[in-house]
Amino acid sequence: MSEQPVEIQPDRSLEEALLAAIAQDDAAEISALLEPLPLADALREILQLEADDRKKVLTLVPPALAAHLIEEAPHELGASLMEALEAARAVEIMDELDSDVQADLIGDMEAVEAEAILSKMDAGDAADVRRLAEYDPETAGGLMMAEAFWFKDTQTVGAVLREMASDDHDVDRYRGQHPYIVDENGAPIGVVSLRGLLSTKRSARLTSIMIEPMTVGVNASLSELEDIFDKYPFLGMPVVETDGRLVGTVSREAVSYALLERAESESLKLQGVVGDELRSMPTWLRSRRRLAWLSANIVLNIIAASVISAYEATLTAVIAIAIFLPMVSDMSGCSGNQAVGVTMRELSLGLVRPVDAFRVWLKEVSVGVINGIALGILIGIVAWVWKGNAALGLVIGLALAMNTILAVSIGGVVPLLLKRLGQDPAAASGPLLTTVTDMAGFFFVLSLATLMMPWLV
Amino acid sequence: MSEQPVEIQPDRSLEEALLAAIAQDDAAEISALLEPLPLADALREILQLEADDRKKVLTLVPPALAAHLIEEAPHELGASLMEALEAARAVEIMDELDSDVQADLIGDMEAVEAEAILSKMDAGDAADVRRLAEYDPETAGGLMMAEAFWFKDTQTVGAVLREMASDDHDVDRYRGQHPYIVDENGAPIGVVSLRGLLSTKRSARLTSIMIEPMTVGVNASLSELEDIFDKYPFLGMPVVETDGRLVGTVSREAVSYALLERAESESLKLQGVVGDELRSMPTWLRSRRRLAWLSANIVLNIIAASVISAYEATLTAVIAIAIFLPMVSDMSGCSGNQAVGVTMRELSLGLVRPVDAFRVWLKEVSVGVINGIALGILIGIVAWVWKGNAALGLVIGLALAMNTILAVSIGGVVPLLLKRLGQDPAAASGPLLTTVTDMAGFFFVLSLATLMMPWLV
Repeated sequence: MSEQPVEIQPDRSLEEALLAAIAQDDAAEISALLEPLPLADALREILQLEADDRKKVLTLVPPALAAHLIEEAPHELGASLMEALEAARAVEIMDELDSDVQADLIGDMEAVEAEAILSKMDAGDAADVRRLAEYDPETAGGLMMAEAFWFKDTQTVGAVLREMASDDHDVDRYRGQHPYIVDENGAPIGVVSLRGLLSTKRSARLTSIMIEPMTVGVNASLSELEDIFDKYPFLGMPVVETDGRLVGTVSREAVSYALLERAESESLKLQGVVGDELRSMPTWLRSRRRLAWLSANIVLNIIAASVISAYEATLTAVIAIAIFLPMVSDMSGCSGNQAVGVTMRELSLGLVRPVDAFRVWLKEVSVGVINGIALGILIGIVAWVWKGNAALGLVIGLALAMNTILAVSIGGVVPLLLKRLGQDPAAASGPLLTTVTDMAGFFFVLSLATLMMPWLV
Repeated sequence: MSEQPVEIQPDRSLEEALLAAIAQDDAAEISALLEPLPLADALREILQLEADDRKKVLTLVPPALAAHLIEEAPHELGASLMEALEAARAVEIMDELDSDVQADLIGDMEAVEAEAILSKMDAGDAADVRRLAEYDPETAGGLMMAEAFWFKDTQTVGAVLREMASDDHDVDRYRGQHPYIVDENGAPIGVVSLRGLLSTKRSARLTSIMIEPMTVGVNASLSELEDIFDKYPFLGMPVVETDGRLVGTVSREAVSYALLERAESESLKLQGVVGDELRSMPTWLRSRRRLAWLSANIVLNIIAASVISAYEATLTAVIAIAIFLPMVSDMSGCSGNQAVGVTMRELSLGLVRPVDAFRVWLKEVSVGVINGIALGILIGIVAWVWKGNAALGLVIGLALAMNTILAVSIGGVVPLLLKRLGQDPAAASGPLLTTVTDMAGFFFVLSLATLMMPWLV
């Protein structure tokens, strides 16, 4: 893996120069400092500023740079940066962004700030944004731009080529997408290739060289879009409303970006962070979101611990067991989480579905048995040697082996069951698995110890 | 979130029809069954087959479909599917793929199978693949296609337009990329826009309308490429060797895909799965990879447990403490993992660097203090009520509060320190954090209990 060289000291001189330029309201100097930086670096510098300074920077730099920085940030952060600006300035920045990004930002803002910005925007643009913001963000409607590169079925090849050659129209915006031909009702009835345009007389009607277009409906899901772009080389697809009208285009790029955001959000949730937390958010918000997840977890922990409580007599008699209780539950939890991780990945790749639970369970049991036996023998020997008691080694080793088999086989299946029940597997699999493996681990160790008591004391 | 409706039963009829078609070597029927499916679904059906049947399917379907399926699979899986085929068939499938995908697959194959395929490929293509496979996969060299859409500086506008209009040349391959102009040494000296080509006389020299091109070096890292594509709307960038020669093009799409693969691989590693495991891999391989990580973890667990061992007298005197030991260590581990998750995300977004460790620590301490106090009070009351002992509640609550503060502040910083030390933060952060929070948790509970002994018994 190639990584950029790790700097040993933060670039204090840049930070100081930036602060000095901000203190002097020196727009040119601020831009000169930030422009050459990679966007992520420039954004990081800005996030480290006080709120007032941050606002000043985003107000003084050219709108295009501010727009790049807002777009570089995750949506929720970008929206909060925009909210902090004067509405007039926010509109200048909005004008630099594609309508799909505009809609994402507006959707993540508080209603008051969103309205303030929309009311100052060009009326047509604002209407587009309002329309886009109504779609589910993980559908073609939520991911599309409101714009499309389209021509009427009565136009000629020459008209398209003139439009492409002119400066009037921002063809770059469509980044290699093909021109669509729409009928009088606004429905896309054809698409023409660049090759077709270049190899035909300019006076020819577009209908003479067009081929039938592929379209996606506004409600197509992110997974469906992923599949379409995997199968076909197109850079964008026309999006049609349920009545067949062309309402926008969804780009390959927007789909890729949404997939990356989803993967990162799922990874965070597996770590117990629900909601896309960034450290630039207010402490109380970060704290509250994390606590919500932890509080549910503490209840599950108490349930698991009640198993130990039922065996106090055994514990008092063989206190050494208390040393191994956390170890057995922790190791099984880790084994189970590995299986959760593999299932989550296969779910996101579409290689496994909730109905495949039994098949997955069979596959995991075999890994669980091998790893359970290996880890059981390992920890059994450790317990035996450490405490000089072979029976103790047997109890601990056997308990870990059994609990590992249980944890691995359950871990592979839990995300599938949660999904079938309509729950979020990323957020709930870990706590659920840990509770089961904790309870079972405590039970295996303590009940085996109770059985073996004569040889343990 | 929109999700596809959850099926209650797997599609047995499809599976049976597929098995029947395979038994009869009915290539047309196999293709007819698989073609209409989304690629992920078709791949899943194939992965569920026995190895012999899987080989038969990939041998009988049209090469283009087989290539789509291989490309849909993660690289390691795609490579193993290719290895199982006859070399001649593998070459037919290879011919359908872009050179960057060819190189990824060859790079993931065993040397013998890779050579067998390369030796049967077109000599020029094979040379391209060998060349590409030498670059680090997460650099421009490793991500580029060996092809570029280029013209000599002596050619005219008409030559380019003729090439675009002809069927000879697979222009689609360059998916909206601009034509580059190279000098006699093969160095890119210009790029022309479609608008420029369309608005200029056909007899004009390309040099008269070209503008200076942006290029990236073969060693540019994935993060650098991400930044370039964030800043500029280009669909592809010309890649130059250290001597300035144009050696290929890296597409926006290849960069997006590599970012998604990296995010998914990091998410797996955070769950303790090193190496991109899929359930279609052999059980022994999956088991061995998971065990390697678990074995390191068991050693860390033993170190943590030794803390408990030092306090056996206290435990014997107040056996109720054994109930709360796993709870305190587990809850702190969860709190710490949340902080690890946020840091890993900010690292991947480039919003935080190893040098920012102190800043991150400060930010996390405040969350840790709030959540530590909240959770400490909660569990303190539970312990008090459950065991009817206020002093026990105080010991457990105080221990969890202190350990949560420690876990959260360490959790935010551990990935940064590991990265600075050149270690992989995704794979190592979790075990390291858990060991520290386990040891500290056990120590806080048991040493506080020892201090408070008169009030506990």
